Amino acid sequence: MNFNDYIRNIPDFPKEGILFKDITPLLKNNRAFKAAIDALIEIYKDEEIDYIVGIEARGFIIGTPMAYALNKGFIPVRKPGKLPYDKYTASYDLEYGSSELEIHSDAFSKGDKILLVDDLLATGGTTKASVDLIEKLGGEIVGIAFLLELKDLNGRDMIEGYDIFTLLQH
Amino acid sequence: MNFNDYIRNIPDFPKEGILFKDITPLLKNNRAFKAAIDALIEIYKDEEIDYIVGIEARGFIIGTPMAYALNKGFIPVRKPGKLPYDKYTASYDLEYGSSELEIHSDAFSKGDKILLVDDLLATGGTTKASVDLIEKLGGEIVGIAFLLELKDLNGRDMIEGYDIFTLLQH
Repeated sequence: MNFNDYIRNIPDFPKEGILFKDITPLLKNNRAFKAAIDALIEIYKDEEIDYIVGIEARGFIIGTPMAYALNKGFIPVRKPGKLPYDKYTASYDLEYGSSELEIHSDAFSKGDKILLVDDLLATGGTTKASVDLIEKLGGEIVGIAFLLELKDLNGRDMIEGYDIFTLLQH
Repeated sequence: MNFNDYIRNIPDFPKEGILFKDITPLLKNNRAFKAAIDALIEIYKDEEIDYIVGIEARGFIIGTPMAYALNKGFIPVRKPGKLPYDKYTASYDLEYGSSELEIHSDAFSKGDKILLVDDLLATGGTTKASVDLIEKLGGEIVGIAFLLELKDLNGRDMIEGYDIFTLLQH
């Protein structure tokens, strides 16, 4: 299956000059969606993993079926103000200004093995903030998985030294 | 398995007087998470369904593993400004003011059979807005599934006449 047939290019979204990669056609196609999740879990099925951490919101779409299929617990990294319990916060830079991500302080225990999941590796900013949150809790990151990597943005530079897998590269 | 052991009550979140139901302990426990998704798909496994529609963001957490396990396509209903292609918008009331949800105008075809999924049935406002979006596209709603229902808020009154299933009732 050529997954790229199900990624739609949207010019000038969210603003002029950006070519947005729309994954909704892939999610909509039951065979493409299942095959993409199955290809991702194939990489990690023999890995020792305690929890899958997914980044809001599209990381939930990739991370929760992986957690279900691999029979692992799922832990959300969320946008500010969404998590109700004690939490840690990490900042990341945007083109103008910055934003934050949060994780519950009791999300997992020190030494737990974590697979971090998101849909897209772009500049790597949100991934790096999530890595920082996981390591603040003492988690051991055994891998970072993405559906799609935008190679020209060099997001891997932000998360050097980690075991990274991307199903598609654009 | 008593799923209620994995729902955490957080008083005064997001504001004073609200008792927030935190589902993160259920997501974190691999057995509880899998059993909850399996209990939901058991209800719909013999139903004729074309697509599962999940409401951002926690509806993604419940809806995408259901889509994966039932081998259906997944369609997101998202918060404003997130969907990149042509879309429809529906408003819903908040305690003060209102907010909006969006769906791609080509999300599915007229007559397609839709299972709508979210984590929580509270006042029913976001559910009703999502029902409106699905019906604007000509979708036939074959069921609406929730992990948890807050009975005192009478959310069912907002979506009368639909086939509703809630795994847990508080």
